[in-house]
This record gives sequence, structure tokens and C-alpha cells, in this order.
Amino acid sequence: MTYELYYWPGLQGRGEFIRLALEDAGAPYIDVARSAEHGGVRALQAMMAGSCARGPSPFAPPFLKTDDLVLAQVANILHFLGPKLELVGATEASRHHALQLQLTIADLIAEVHDTHHPASTQLYYEDQKPEALRRTQSFLDARLPKFLGYLERNVQDNSSGAGAHLLGAEHCYVDLSVYQIVEGLRYAFPTAMKAMEPKVPGLVTVHNRVAERPRIKAYVASGRRIAFNENGIFRRYPELDLVPSWASATT
Amino acid sequence: MTYELYYWPGLQGRGEFIRLALEDAGAPYIDVARSAEHGGVRALQAMMAGSCARGPSPFAPPFLKTDDLVLAQVANILHFLGPKLELVGATEASRHHALQLQLTIADLIAEVHDTHHPASTQLYYEDQKPEALRRTQSFLDARLPKFLGYLERNVQDNSSGAGAHLLGAEHCYVDLSVYQIVEGLRYAFPTAMKAMEPKVPGLVTVHNRVAERPRIKAYVASGRRIAFNENGIFRRYPELDLVPSWASATT
Repeated sequence: MTYELYYWPGLQGRGEFIRLALEDAGAPYIDVARSAEHGGVRALQAMMAGSCARGPSPFAPPFLKTDDLVLAQVANILHFLGPKLELVGATEASRHHALQLQLTIADLIAEVHDTHHPASTQLYYEDQKPEALRRTQSFLDARLPKFLGYLERNVQDNSSGAGAHLLGAEHCYVDLSVYQIVEGLRYAFPTAMKAMEPKVPGLVTVHNRVAERPRIKAYVASGRRIAFNENGIFRRYPELDLVPSWASATT
Repeated sequence: MTYELYYWPGLQGRGEFIRLALEDAGAPYIDVARSAEHGGVRALQAMMAGSCARGPSPFAPPFLKTDDLVLAQVANILHFLGPKLELVGATEASRHHALQLQLTIADLIAEVHDTHHPASTQLYYEDQKPEALRRTQSFLDARLPKFLGYLERNVQDNSSGAGAHLLGAEHCYVDLSVYQIVEGLRYAFPTAMKAMEPKVPGLVTVHNRVAERPRIKAYVASGRRIAFNENGIFRRYPELDLVPSWASATT
């Protein structure tokens, strides 16, 4: 079957975590809102507005339509796709552990979003710049090392992962998401990431392994992957590219 | 088997969503950090610090220990417990739809937390009061009606739920979480909720139905349920009990 992915066109955003899984697995899919032939963004808006016979309508994109289901929430979609695309271990425990890590990554992503939208999700970044500066400093000082240190520990503690997997010995959708957060954090916070990366060699190894996977390489080279920009979650605002407090003494 | 729940003592917080499921099902559990006999908060801290042979160690409480597993992240834990406690439908679709709604509730809870911690999760509320005021106004104006309106639509659109269930015809862990957010929002934002509740009669019906369930009633009456307080997610700060912009003209 052909999956239908619904996400805002023009930005990677949360949709990119789903795109990476579909691309890596070589699964056929339509990126509906980017396809005029399939109705574009109006098709997405119609799905949001309508009642949905296949279950709860989505609160927000991304959502995925299959022959039987419409599912929203990134971690839920990946939890669903994981076994079908062979991107998660076979046991119930593996699936719950992958979901657990993906939800922690979702928490990190929400905090990255809050760096440029700390006062209100309704206002532009330009209308909350002082708050964003304060929130970003706090994020880079305390939260970035906490989240990445936690994920790094999972790579290091995973005795069957050869230092290049978060869970077990097999490639997993969580690894794809780690690739994406490393890419995104490098884009948004180059100064902090330059200081951070030597402390998280396992995550860099996971990132590099994913980047070399043939279908990911082909996807990035194809031009289908939207470039990072200031509509997405990971945004580059030079005034927020701050030096973390823990880095000033060591770099 | 007896479940072990690990969560900070002294607050409801995110742990309460798990407690409500265990209590409603009458499942035997130990609230470890509240039990000196079981090691109290030190047992929780030891679990956080140590490497865990049963999977990834938790990033943060709450987490649940079973005979075979340690699982973190509220939605993941409820997704795991749902079938075991008969708190979710039997099909794969039901389980994914419940997870989807629970994750949207998790997003709401994160935004409630941001009302008193918009600038930094590392600082006290007292150190970010101006930002909290701005964030709370934005939350009450736009986000509260958006989230509750979305959940209300699920009650209304659920043709088999008799106006008192979010999913299908059966009681579900998502209904328990709706009870908790109604309770919490009433505590934190009484003025806004007084104006909001007539707009979401379905959620009030779900709340009232849950409140009447015998084991929930017994739990609340027992004194085991910790009172809301200013260490949790739902906090009552009189200066943040604001009138939403949409309410001023209509009430």
C-alpha cells in the first residue's frame, strides 16, 4: 500500500521524523500537502476540519493515512510504522523501549521549539525576543547537555549496539530521529553543538551511520528533503547561537 | 503481580495519570518513593542513576517496574497498562487512537507546565513571574480553548460513547486523564475554567462519570491522593488566575 503523509509544506518540522522512516525503508508514500495532484495543503486542512470515521481526527499535523487508519502524533506514527517497516525490534519490550526513547526525543524537540517561542505559540519570534534569549541560554546551559547526555548513555550502555545503535543490535527508527536532532541542533545552535559533540561521540556515530545508509543518502541528495529554515522547529537566529555556560571555560 | 510506581513524593504531577489507572483498575502497586519500607525517594534516585538491564533507564519519573520491564513516559506506561488493566479497546486501532489522544493530553500538560516555567525549567517560578504572566494569558486565550475544544469534539463525534467517553463505548485510560486535567485546570485557573466548562459539556460529563467510579471515589476519599499544590504541574497562583480574552465579553 501507499502511505499518505500529511504535513505542512515548506518546512521539515515534526513531519521530517516520519519522512525519514518512510524514506529509509523505501516505503511508497505521498507527501500530500506538497503534491498539487493530491490536493496540496487544502487536502490537509480538510482532513483536520472533518470528522474522521477511522478514529479521532488529528489535533495537528503530521498525520498518516493508511488503508484503515488515520494516526497523528509523531511517536504514535513511528510506533505504528516500526514493525511494518522493520524499524524496531520484534518483541513487545523493544517496541515499548523505542517508544520511550522517541517520547524523550519529542520532549527535547518541544523544548527546542520553546527556545524561539517561550512566551506564546501564537506570536512571532520577533514579538518575544527577550524571552527567547533567556530561554535559549537556559536550554543550552542545562537542558541540551541533559537530553543529549541521556541519549549518549543509551548508546554507551547498549552492549549489543557496537556503539552505533540506541537499542539492541538492529537499526531502529529512534536512530533516524537521533540523526535528525543532530542535524537540526547543528543548524540551530552551531556554537553549542561544536562544544557538545566531543562529549557525545556515540550520538555522532549513530548520526554518521544513518547518514551513510543508501536510501537516506539518496533522499538527502535528491533535493526532496526540504532545507532547514526559520519556519521549522530548528531555526538559526544568530542572536540565539549562544555560548553555553559549561563551554566557556573548556573551549 | 505487584507493580512498582516510581514518582516524586509530595506532588501529583505526571505520576498521577498512572496512579489513576492503577487505582481505577484495582491493580496492586507500590508507590515506591512514598514508602519508606521500599526505600523511598532514594530507591527512585538509584533507579535513575543506574544502568538498567531491562532496557533504557528513565530520563525522568514517572516510571513503572514490572517483573520484566522498566518503562518510562506517561503515555508509554498507559499504552502498556491499558490492555492489562482492561482500560483500552482490544484492537490495534483502538490502542493507537488512545495513545494519540493521550499524547495530545501530554502536550497540553507540557503547556500548562510552561505557564509557570516559561523562561527556564531550572529556575523557580518566582524568578520568571513577568514571563509567566505573558505566557499564561496566551495559554488561556488561545491554547486552553483549542485543546479542550479538540477533546470535546472527540466526545461529541464518538457516536458509540453516549456523550461520556472519548473512545468507543468502553471506559478508557484517556477518560481517566480527562478527569485529571479537568480537576487540575479547575485548581490552577478557576476563572478561566468557570467560563470554559459550559463550552465543553462532554468533558464535564466524562469527568463526572469518572469521579463516580467506585474505586476512584474510594481513592479520593482515602487521603492517598495527594492534594494539588505549588510543586506540581497544576499550580494555583492568584496572579495567574487570569480572565481569558474570549471570556470577558461573554461572562
